[in-house]
Amino acid sequence: MKTIPETLLIIGGVAGGASAAARARRHSETTHIIMLERGPDVSFANCGLPYHIGGEIPDRADLAIQTPASLRSMLNLDVRTLTEAVSIDRAKREVLVRDLADGSESVITYDKLILAPGASPLRPPLPGMDSPLIHTLRNLQDMDRIKLAAAAVEHVAIIGAGFIGLEMAEQLHAIGKKVSVIELQSQVLPQLDAEMVRPLEDTLREKGVELILGDGIDGFETTGSGIIAKLKSGKNLTTGLVILSIGVRPESGLAKDAGIELGPRGHIKVDGWQVTSDPDIYAVGDVCETEEPILGKRIAIPLGGPANRQGRTAADHIFMGEKALRYPGSIGTAIVRVFDHAAGIAGYSEARLKAESVDYQTVTVNGASHASYFPGAETITLKLLWSPDDGRVLGAQASGMDGVDKRLDVIATALRGRLTIDDLAHLEFSYAPPFGNAKDVINVAGFAAGNIRDGLLVPVPDLKSAGAQIVDVRPAATARKQPVPGAVNIPLGELRHRLDELDRGQPVFTICQMGKTSYFAARILANHGFDARSILGGAHHQL
Amino acid sequence: MKTIPETLLIIGGVAGGASAAARARRHSETTHIIMLERGPDVSFANCGLPYHIGGEIPDRADLAIQTPASLRSMLNLDVRTLTEAVSIDRAKREVLVRDLADGSESVITYDKLILAPGASPLRPPLPGMDSPLIHTLRNLQDMDRIKLAAAAVEHVAIIGAGFIGLEMAEQLHAIGKKVSVIELQSQVLPQLDAEMVRPLEDTLREKGVELILGDGIDGFETTGSGIIAKLKSGKNLTTGLVILSIGVRPESGLAKDAGIELGPRGHIKVDGWQVTSDPDIYAVGDVCETEEPILGKRIAIPLGGPANRQGRTAADHIFMGEKALRYPGSIGTAIVRVFDHAAGIAGYSEARLKAESVDYQTVTVNGASHASYFPGAETITLKLLWSPDDGRVLGAQASGMDGVDKRLDVIATALRGRLTIDDLAHLEFSYAPPFGNAKDVINVAGFAAGNIRDGLLVPVPDLKSAGAQIVDVRPAATARKQPVPGAVNIPLGELRHRLDELDRGQPVFTICQMGKTSYFAARILANHGFDARSILGGAHHQL
Repeated sequence: MKTIPETLLIIGGVAGGASAAARARRHSETTHIIMLERGPDVSFANCGLPYHIGGEIPDRADLAIQTPASLRSMLNLDVRTLTEAVSIDRAKREVLVRDLADGSESVITYDKLILAPGASPLRPPLPGMDSPLIHTLRNLQDMDRIKLAAAAVEHVAIIGAGFIGLEMAEQLHAIGKKVSVIELQSQVLPQLDAEMVRPLEDTLREKGVELILGDGIDGFETTGSGIIAKLKSGKNLTTGLVILSIGVRPESGLAKDAGIELGPRGHIKVDGWQVTSDPDIYAVGDVCETEEPILGKRIAIPLGGPANRQGRTAADHIFMGEKALRYPGSIGTAIVRVFDHAAGIAGYSEARLKAESVDYQTVTVNGASHASYFPGAETITLKLLWSPDDGRVLGAQASGMDGVDKRLDVIATALRGRLTIDDLAHLEFSYAPPFGNAKDVINVAGFAAGNIRDGLLVPVPDLKSAGAQIVDVRPAATARKQPVPGAVNIPLGELRHRLDELDRGQPVFTICQMGKTSYFAARILANHGFDARSILGGAHHQL
Repeated sequence: MKTIPETLLIIGGVAGGASAAARARRHSETTHIIMLERGPDVSFANCGLPYHIGGEIPDRADLAIQTPASLRSMLNLDVRTLTEAVSIDRAKREVLVRDLADGSESVITYDKLILAPGASPLRPPLPGMDSPLIHTLRNLQDMDRIKLAAAAVEHVAIIGAGFIGLEMAEQLHAIGKKVSVIELQSQVLPQLDAEMVRPLEDTLREKGVELILGDGIDGFETTGSGIIAKLKSGKNLTTGLVILSIGVRPESGLAKDAGIELGPRGHIKVDGWQVTSDPDIYAVGDVCETEEPILGKRIAIPLGGPANRQGRTAADHIFMGEKALRYPGSIGTAIVRVFDHAAGIAGYSEARLKAESVDYQTVTVNGASHASYFPGAETITLKLLWSPDDGRVLGAQASGMDGVDKRLDVIATALRGRLTIDDLAHLEFSYAPPFGNAKDVINVAGFAAGNIRDGLLVPVPDLKSAGAQIVDVRPAATARKQPVPGAVNIPLGELRHRLDELDRGQPVFTICQMGKTSYFAARILANHGFDARSILGGAHHQL
């Protein structure tokens, strides 16, 4: 056991800071725990902010998980809100702080210091950025301002189609606003691979949300009645309100000024116990970067789950020393609901693996959220990525609605356990018709991945990668209703008798509705000597 | 690659047999695959049978996943329904089969044989068992008979409160029947620990289902108007219809007569490739036993998921030899929905660990199905069991409704990966308010387990294990509304100022609503020198 610190100073009172404070108090009743928070609120539900704007969380008070008073009463914390840390004197272990109410400054001496200042929304220095009609969403006050401003306008422009941008689009639509979403990338949710978010894009458009993809913002011009967003394409978008959600920047200025080591993108570097380059100073949450456990790269994941658990880790190390459990690194698990569709990711996307020049294999399969013969089953599309060297899972993405979160959580667990595609094939899930499947979509992804390795499945990622000889093996009626461009229809049941219709001299590309029958067909063809390849995900995913 | 067999004979055409046949056909177009099925149907959704009786799956045709005709057309199978295997001559590789339609017998010669006969419902030899009012549920014909019979009666007695018994109770209640469930054990769902199924029992009783626990059946007497179930307690229960669901017996007679090695409970013994003691004969599904991967014990899990994947494994070994992936053993993941409550298990229960004399630790925690500040969150109770030696997870049980299946599937994945309580603490789940939590109940279980190991949490499993000095730390209003027997109420916020009210000479047992605040309180007390212990699961679980 280490020496119990007399004073623990925590800068930041939301996810990481609040978790650190709570955990520290479990270890010691005697330590003076001071929590500084620049804003008026501590420990609020920042992930819930969009849902109060849209009215889905009607009571604002539900977002205040703790108050300064409750933290004082429950945790005996010395909470100082509206108080900003100005500078750190590491040699003296002192922090200069400013009371934002009266501007007075004072010095706090610490034994241990935890930095949990979070990250602030990016506000690029563009012309017209000083308009009061441009908002970002970080705290309850931002939320209140947006809610009030939105009430008075017909149209809102959201810049950035990441998780928060899409949640805001959904919630503003829910209160009757017309919404345009502008995204620099040519897809929404650039954390996921493009083809996996197409259903989200379709859903948004069906609801009447305008998507302007592959276009950025050049500046703004405030008019008498609103604001004009000037796009790089030259297009001008007139709106009543702008929400800027193009990413966040770690609030590491204080640490940097104090000479604490930062990573290449400005995050504070920490070890497994969240210790910075100064052994008495810890950093947790959005401000820090850690090593991820899949490929061992440095990573910064600005999400609540990692922040909370990093806060806990820092507190444990302060009071338990090397006996404390190390934070095992963030893998990046995320999900978003957009109307009646959900999509998410755990681990690496294909785009990130490409960017890191990491060798990978991938397969995309469809499955039912629960037994397809039981009412209410919905289709889930799962894209799996793994290492061809050892079959280890590198990441997965899921798209659908019911049960998308479950599959991502299983993959997140598999990533933590360094499981392989063969392990996925034999995961034994809870199965009763209302809840699951005898062969879940994750098992099927494992099967398909193994089939690729064993040469039983020769996958074609998409229709445009297919050659000239495409065979649609769906029933004739289905093929007529939703034809596959360029395909000849030979239903699976007739295939063995109609082999003569195909040219053995060139590859045959099979397609069906869900990507399963096309695999069956390709096996028949391959066993009859054809070079047969199956188009992944079927018409459900490709058309 | 092994020699491709000319004839593959599969005995049994439902889950394991059908999967084996389908997978075999992917490997070879030339093998003659013969599937024998004693009944008239193949590949039906046996897990869906109760839900057609209750009308939740209205269309009977939805339960026929495949028909003999579709298997012929899609898989080019030689399907022979209403055909029974009479005996196996292993030396000659011959099976004598009988056509149940005309009684004629013939011989089939095989190169490889897969036994997938399943398990039959137990029918103990009790007086009156020959009554036509006593039913078991295994196939579509059983289902039809029960559906027809149920229509004509007011009351149904279900013998056995396992998964099928409870599903039948729910579904028969749904069509207006009065239902009594008789179970020899003193709890429903004896696969789970008693305290974890109490909410299920409450739900059943609230719906008006009569539970007769700790009582067995001695015999039946058919009367003019119905049937009397005579219980061991001496009680007589008059009913219109009896459903017997007291377990299953592997249909291993054919294998036994052929001299194939069986396990102690009559299951066929197989290796990792599902090979029996005869290298040309495989066994898959409910008829076989495998090694489970948690403690390495022999186990038989009569469920659809394992059966399907074992069938696939057998086919792979036949065509791929030792390159085939081994079946990694069944862990026993199961779930049941009973009205608006669900409960399930993955891995070992406490009762089974005790029976196996395996050393374990356990903790029970509550959490929300998704962010508690977002509408619709429901409470999940999770019981975790792990090895005190290395922290490895041995099993878990979950009870609640929304998200119970998700937590079980995560635990099932953790068991496959041999994860520890520390791994659970840092699983990084998909989190957006509609889907999850920044700290999920599984993380919390991992935290709590680590706290027990590190001495921060001294758990008390239940109220009756608590000594005299119980402190209820809930708010005064809550404590008044739902008092904890024998407890004094000191709300957490007042605890630090009211330490003098407690006797330092004896242990203090803290309790709250969900088992979280009581832990906080116990930490405060421990850090002030008390022997403080927290009652697990709180009033939610204990009262």
